[in-house]
Amino acid sequence: MKELKGACVIGQSGGPTSVINASAYGVIRTALDNPNITAVFGAEHGIKGVLNDRLFDMSKEDAKELELLKYTPSSALGSCRYKMKDPDVDDTDYKRILEVFRKHDIRYFFYNGGNDSMDTCNKISKFMQRSGYECRVMGVPKTIDNDLFGTDHCPGYASAAKYIATSCMEVYQDARVYDTGMICIIEIMGRHAGWLTAAAALATEYGAGPDLIYLPETDFDIDKFLADVERVYKERGNCMVAVSEGIHYADGGFVSEAKTSATDGFGHAQLGGLAALLANVVKEKLGVKVRGIELSLLQRCGAHLASETDIEESFMAGKAAVENAAAGITDKMVAFERGEIDGHYACKTKLLNLTDVANFEKKVPLEWINAEQNFVTKEFIDYALPLIQGEPKLPKEDGLPRFARLKKELAK
Amino acid sequence: MKELKGACVIGQSGGPTSVINASAYGVIRTALDNPNITAVFGAEHGIKGVLNDRLFDMSKEDAKELELLKYTPSSALGSCRYKMKDPDVDDTDYKRILEVFRKHDIRYFFYNGGNDSMDTCNKISKFMQRSGYECRVMGVPKTIDNDLFGTDHCPGYASAAKYIATSCMEVYQDARVYDTGMICIIEIMGRHAGWLTAAAALATEYGAGPDLIYLPETDFDIDKFLADVERVYKERGNCMVAVSEGIHYADGGFVSEAKTSATDGFGHAQLGGLAALLANVVKEKLGVKVRGIELSLLQRCGAHLASETDIEESFMAGKAAVENAAAGITDKMVAFERGEIDGHYACKTKLLNLTDVANFEKKVPLEWINAEQNFVTKEFIDYALPLIQGEPKLPKEDGLPRFARLKKELAK
Repeated sequence: MKELKGACVIGQSGGPTSVINASAYGVIRTALDNPNITAVFGAEHGIKGVLNDRLFDMSKEDAKELELLKYTPSSALGSCRYKMKDPDVDDTDYKRILEVFRKHDIRYFFYNGGNDSMDTCNKISKFMQRSGYECRVMGVPKTIDNDLFGTDHCPGYASAAKYIATSCMEVYQDARVYDTGMICIIEIMGRHAGWLTAAAALATEYGAGPDLIYLPETDFDIDKFLADVERVYKERGNCMVAVSEGIHYADGGFVSEAKTSATDGFGHAQLGGLAALLANVVKEKLGVKVRGIELSLLQRCGAHLASETDIEESFMAGKAAVENAAAGITDKMVAFERGEIDGHYACKTKLLNLTDVANFEKKVPLEWINAEQNFVTKEFIDYALPLIQGEPKLPKEDGLPRFARLKKELAK
Repeated sequence: MKELKGACVIGQSGGPTSVINASAYGVIRTALDNPNITAVFGAEHGIKGVLNDRLFDMSKEDAKELELLKYTPSSALGSCRYKMKDPDVDDTDYKRILEVFRKHDIRYFFYNGGNDSMDTCNKISKFMQRSGYECRVMGVPKTIDNDLFGTDHCPGYASAAKYIATSCMEVYQDARVYDTGMICIIEIMGRHAGWLTAAAALATEYGAGPDLIYLPETDFDIDKFLADVERVYKERGNCMVAVSEGIHYADGGFVSEAKTSATDGFGHAQLGGLAALLANVVKEKLGVKVRGIELSLLQRCGAHLASETDIEESFMAGKAAVENAAAGITDKMVAFERGEIDGHYACKTKLLNLTDVANFEKKVPLEWINAEQNFVTKEFIDYALPLIQGEPKLPKEDGLPRFARLKKELAK
């Protein structure tokens, strides 16, 4: 192990999750406790905080408030959606990052994000290597979409999955309370991968969830969909459907973007999202009561329903990033490997090359989708169920969540 | 106290809540334990279960499953939205109810619902009196809308309020995560009374909630609204708004029903609800990123965020109904009276005449709305805060809610 003395910076990027701050806390706490790491900075709004030299001195924060990050949803340091240019085309940003790194003697860079963020992380890592500036770079994964390559699952997914499954179970109770039937369509996040929508099947597994589930891994057929819904409604007197926001027709066009169409007769000027659109189509076709529900931002910030497993693993990912970097490793992303201990689910970290993970998307395997393409198989349940276990002891103040309150003092 | 031996029936009516089953459990448990009550029936789908003679024998249920009703959202016996005719116009239904009551020797009738249900309860009570059939009738209140007359608050309100406040706090974290601003509009239930929407102010009180709140108690002015939003957005870089689904213009027209309009220029064929509509108006006017979120059914069935205070009080209301009826009282609704014990919030039951509560709506006092009509005052916070206290120990199975599983065996 080669010792490297210097400061570290952690940035958060992309869409937040309920537990992304648990990873940030894993990085920050471990770094603060490491004697070789001379300063711990939090970048304001991800890489933009580095570019703008807006770095918070994390040593100024109260230790108890930092610990509350484990239970505080959304990116506490602020996030960004900033796409770095190819450094061969324009290396302005990279030079600026190097300048700021030099200024603060930053020798460790931790980037907490999803696919795009790993691409950013990878580009910075390679630029630092080419520049001969010694900086250890580690990606810390997060994404509710669960679509990062090479890892069994992604920090943040399980908590969103638990929120979705629990909410579906509750809505199921409500949506069949009257003696008149109802069709309920729930729209769930996931533009290209159906992991989140598939999580609604956990509710069904426990007796109160959707009858039908449509993922973006397969092509959506509106006539087949209407026939499915009609059949279930006739059989059971009610029907609950979970759809991914990313469902698309065979030609690739998103169903959510369907506008006027003379042929299918269900085009509408659209204000609501996909759930509202499909609800209208079903109502027109079947003439029954239909309600569309969009879980919207709630599913990715619902920290009150976080999985304790997810919180602990997210923390572990951040901690592993610092420990590995301190041990001399660089240019990697922390990933998860599923195993078993005494017949029970266990999870440990492994390291993947940043180059290998950047920009790949992992989708729900087609074998986990049923032949009718309107539900998922038991393999998915077995995969997802261990991830949502455990109830965190959420800090509360007067019955409401007590989130971390950071001072965010800028580094000198 | 005049003893009255006979069976009892409990029915649930109207829109469900997270804790309406806690009240039903209060009735069922207390009735099962009362030696004068010879049988305890649950009516399937409220009064329709009586009309159809579809009564479940609650003594056949497992005691542990019945206890889980405290944590099971939505009306476990099934609900209805059935408006009883004026008995002076058409007494067919009332005669049928009397027939079913006689058949099963039902001498106690408990009806668990909101405004309309209390009207039903009142009419049945008066009909039984006129018919000379001795039957003690008690209303057990429930409504997330908190709009029942004469009671400090309504069972079900606090849990929905807690769900709303918590969700607003979480969305607040998410909605300001980027360095680019966003306006977030959250639509909350409440057609005529703003109690639920006002609950979003609890989030603000704890540092992470809406900047602006609009209730149906005042007239909505779209130009004033847009000016408010623009001002806050310019001042703070973000803006979060909570609106009641029932906001209306000075002429009484619901904002949610605004369609094409040549004058205001924001009419659209509407698929989504009010949040989507207002989001579009704001986007067109201010040209910034806007997201509309509708809490939809989630807010009334989110038992995982129920207030323990609400659960216990809901149970207490059901229990008090049976105890008072068994003691000879009839023709009343159980209500809540707020008091203090050792300087702390306390709540006890009282009884109101059914005639007095049926069909009245209690709204948020205008003094609790600020002069600008875009927020609520501290009086509201002081009123609502004690109600949302306490975290129930929710029964879970593999990380998901374990709801009551009733056998629902029909009475012979």
